[in-house]
Amino acid sequence: MIFIKIILGVDHQGIKIKDSIIEYLKKNAINVECSELKNFDADDYPDFALDVCKKVLNENCLGILICGSGIGMSIAANKVKGIKCARVFDENDAFTAKNHNGANIIAFGINLDLEKIYKIIDTFIATKSPCEERHLRRIKKIDKIEQGLYDEL
Amino acid sequence: MIFIKIILGVDHQGIKIKDSIIEYLKKNAINVECSELKNFDADDYPDFALDVCKKVLNENCLGILICGSGIGMSIAANKVKGIKCARVFDENDAFTAKNHNGANIIAFGINLDLEKIYKIIDTFIATKSPCEERHLRRIKKIDKIEQGLYDEL
Repeated sequence: MIFIKIILGVDHQGIKIKDSIIEYLKKNAINVECSELKNFDADDYPDFALDVCKKVLNENCLGILICGSGIGMSIAANKVKGIKCARVFDENDAFTAKNHNGANIIAFGINLDLEKIYKIIDTFIATKSPCEERHLRRIKKIDKIEQGLYDEL
Repeated sequence: MIFIKIILGVDHQGIKIKDSIIEYLKKNAINVECSELKNFDADDYPDFALDVCKKVLNENCLGILICGSGIGMSIAANKVKGIKCARVFDENDAFTAKNHNGANIIAFGINLDLEKIYKIIDTFIATKSPCEERHLRRIKKIDKIEQGLYDEL
C-alpha cells in the first residue's frame, strides 16, 4: 500500500467544509494535516497557500486548498517554485491537472457540493503523474518559465 | 472612452474557437492581438502563455488564454512575475478574479459554450480592479510570495 498524505489549507471560507473533508480522507485511510489560523477574523488565503506549498514540497506529497472560489489560492500557490496548482471543478479536471499538467495541489471553492469534492479528491489521489512525452515536454517548459529561463523554451 | 486591449493566446485546442472570440471582441470595439504558432502539430501551451504574459506586462493590458482545459495555461501564466491568471468558468468567476484577486489574465478550456465565454469576457473587461483594503492586502501577500519574500507575509 502506498502511503499518501494530503496537506489541506483553508481560509475563513474554506473552513466551513474543512471537517467534512478531513473526515472523508481519514475514512479512506489518507493521512491529512490541516493548515489554518486560529483567528479567522482577517485571515488571508496567501498565508495558507504558502504554508501548504512549503509542506507539500518538504514532504513530497499532495495539497488541497479551499477558499471562497479557489481562484486566490490557485494564483498564490502557483507563485511558489515547484508547485503546480490547478483550480478544479470536477473529476475530469482533477485527472487532467495531475496526469497532463503535473499538478501537486488542487484548489476549489466552497460552492462545489461535497459529493463532487470527494470524487475530485479520489481522482486526484488515484491519478498517475505525467508520463507521456508531450506532457513532460510542456511541464519542462513551465519549469523554465518558473526559473525565468524564457530563452530556453 | 477607455482604450482596451486584449492579448489572446491559443494552443492547438484553443485555436478551434479563436476566430469566434476575435470576431466578438472586434464587434465590441475591443482591440485584440492573437498569439499563436503557425505549426500546430506539436505546439505547447507554455509557449503561448509566456508570449501573452510578456505582452500583457509590456502593454499593461488584459489577456485571455485558451487550451483544452485552461489548467495548463493558468499554471504556466502564474509562473510569470506580475501576472495573476485565473481559470474561470462563468461571469462570477470573472468578476471575482479581477475585483478580488487582481487577475490580469483569464484562462479557460474549449468545453465552455461560446455564449458563456462572451459573458465571461464582458465581465472581465467591465469589472474594476481591486480597491477594498482586504483584497489589496491579500494581493500584496501574493506579490511577496512571488518575490520569494516569505518572511514578509
